[in-house]
Amino acid sequence: MPIKWNITAKDGQARTGELRTPRGIVETPVFMPVGTQATVKSMSPEELQEMGVKIILSNTYHLYLRPGVDIIARAGGLHRFMHWELPILTDSGGFQVFSLSSMRDVSEEGVTFRSHIDGSTHFFTPEKAVEIQNILGAEIIMPLDHVVPYPCSYEEARDAMERSVRWAGRCREKHQKTGRQALFAIVQGGIYRDLREACCRELAAADYPGYAVGGLSVGEPKDIMYRVLETTVPLLPEEKPRYLMGVGSPDALLEGVVRGVDLFDCVLPTRIARNGRVMVKEGYLTLRNAQYSRDVRPVDPGCPCYTCRNYSRAYIRHLLKADEILGLRLTTYHNLYFLTDFMFRIRSAIREQRFKHFYKSFKAGFSTAGQNN
Amino acid sequence: MPIKWNITAKDGQARTGELRTPRGIVETPVFMPVGTQATVKSMSPEELQEMGVKIILSNTYHLYLRPGVDIIARAGGLHRFMHWELPILTDSGGFQVFSLSSMRDVSEEGVTFRSHIDGSTHFFTPEKAVEIQNILGAEIIMPLDHVVPYPCSYEEARDAMERSVRWAGRCREKHQKTGRQALFAIVQGGIYRDLREACCRELAAADYPGYAVGGLSVGEPKDIMYRVLETTVPLLPEEKPRYLMGVGSPDALLEGVVRGVDLFDCVLPTRIARNGRVMVKEGYLTLRNAQYSRDVRPVDPGCPCYTCRNYSRAYIRHLLKADEILGLRLTTYHNLYFLTDFMFRIRSAIREQRFKHFYKSFKAGFSTAGQNN
Repeated sequence: MPIKWNITAKDGQARTGELRTPRGIVETPVFMPVGTQATVKSMSPEELQEMGVKIILSNTYHLYLRPGVDIIARAGGLHRFMHWELPILTDSGGFQVFSLSSMRDVSEEGVTFRSHIDGSTHFFTPEKAVEIQNILGAEIIMPLDHVVPYPCSYEEARDAMERSVRWAGRCREKHQKTGRQALFAIVQGGIYRDLREACCRELAAADYPGYAVGGLSVGEPKDIMYRVLETTVPLLPEEKPRYLMGVGSPDALLEGVVRGVDLFDCVLPTRIARNGRVMVKEGYLTLRNAQYSRDVRPVDPGCPCYTCRNYSRAYIRHLLKADEILGLRLTTYHNLYFLTDFMFRIRSAIREQRFKHFYKSFKAGFSTAGQNN
Repeated sequence: MPIKWNITAKDGQARTGELRTPRGIVETPVFMPVGTQATVKSMSPEELQEMGVKIILSNTYHLYLRPGVDIIARAGGLHRFMHWELPILTDSGGFQVFSLSSMRDVSEEGVTFRSHIDGSTHFFTPEKAVEIQNILGAEIIMPLDHVVPYPCSYEEARDAMERSVRWAGRCREKHQKTGRQALFAIVQGGIYRDLREACCRELAAADYPGYAVGGLSVGEPKDIMYRVLETTVPLLPEEKPRYLMGVGSPDALLEGVVRGVDLFDCVLPTRIARNGRVMVKEGYLTLRNAQYSRDVRPVDPGCPCYTCRNYSRAYIRHLLKADEILGLRLTTYHNLYFLTDFMFRIRSAIREQRFKHFYKSFKAGFSTAGQNN
């Protein structure tokens, strides 16, 4: 069964779709929880499936450095290694090389970088990024790209974008398992409209099975991100899935969907959970705060998730204050359930042609205060 | 339904029994996982039940200091607070006051101590220990006792033992909910035979619903612990359950059972799990060691637990090295499953009159090397 995506409904620019893979169907728009090191932090695969997660993301850069690709190959690939039977998307390592490693040196051939774990030196080429991802065996894989920070000069953004396009071509050349793994393309170009447009045109002409918008959510103001999306997405092929990398706050997910994005990933829900922050429809609660010490209500009284069905804010606060692992498990479970359910409701609204209303009414009730803490 | 224990089979000094409580029946001999701060570290209540755990222990000292008894009362008691529906045993705080707090000052009235968390000063009396445990609501509660370290002079051990007996009497005086909570007695007396014997005689005459052997597993050599057990247990009423506090290594559990002990608790299986150590029938494996990095076998190839059914040693080692919470969850799950299953097999062996054989054959195959790491 080759990997295939098709649109099932449209409402404005927003659309629902089905991503068919050998490991099952994923309905879009979808949020992918991040399992950086071959585990979605603090969760078991069964818990993710129980809350309705159908696809996760994992990181080539991290897995390559630790435990190493040979060990995952020996275990029978990433799915078996981590006991996750459903689809996986692996990124190429481009973003991590440029954001995490302590040194990097880019040439046309590839990028030399130092491990953030032990300082050892490594060399990634586009071909190597594909080779590694072929071994890992995810259903969706990404080309090595040259990611620039925000802010970044026009010349730097242009050179990196042009290199990313050439590297994407080399990745496609190298990638052979096109029936079992879909290699997406990544649009770069910083915040510069003409660079983004040029990148879209080149990549669209090459007919990839999916298109990611990269280099966003790297520190730029949100209105700039939304503006870039508006000038980028319409130039991508309508009939191919679009993936906005690194986005996972409820408000930004909505803004992505309304502009025609289909896939998202972000560490936000799991990261803030470990800081004791949970998402509810009104915004964020910091459960470590003293105000919750005697609050015997669930995290979100209207939520049917495992955490909210069985535990009080007071208990979870106690666990967090006492550094108990169950505290992180319960907040993580709730946040991932929240986003999974949120995407479910977005898909229903699109199918029922009431997405505009859903968008407005959610935004009116949701405060982003403290989102970045 | 009052709390009641009765013997169901005997094989030498070893016996099986049923502890009947308003929250279900617990078959003995049983190992109780420790949920010090109202959570068995890294586990959910569902996971404990799935592996067959029927009773857990929690700590009055810790819960009194954090989150505080008023919050647990407000939440409807300890069971509801922590979402654990089955029986609980709470200890009195005696052991923690004497082992954890930075200062303690004992008088006949009670003990003044400083919190190990924030240095605040607190005063526990036998009556207060019962009051707190009445609010927590465990099925089995313990009297405040004066625990002495090892080594300890005869005079110190004698004074502490005599005080513990008087305090036990005051606890019983205070305790009213005898139908819903069974107040056990605790035998003290250090390593001194005549003190242990005197303590047993006094407490046995007072007819408590169960008897704990306290003040052991506090650093003394194991053969001393076994010798004390041998002189203590035969003086306790045959028809009452006996609880050896702080013991949880497989070899010591066996030695306790063969000497007529029915209940055990210990942090060992959960604590070593967090250091990456797991129990198998041959002894202990340190999964963080490099030798497991490419080992795709389960932790224990013959074990049917969740961890062993789904994950390899190589994956768990990777998680532990990468500081991933799932690593601790999987090792903890396996260790608690191991002990729960171990006690199940002990009970079967006793019922089938083949405990001596089970004892010898397990001991012959099990190495205690590295047990205390």
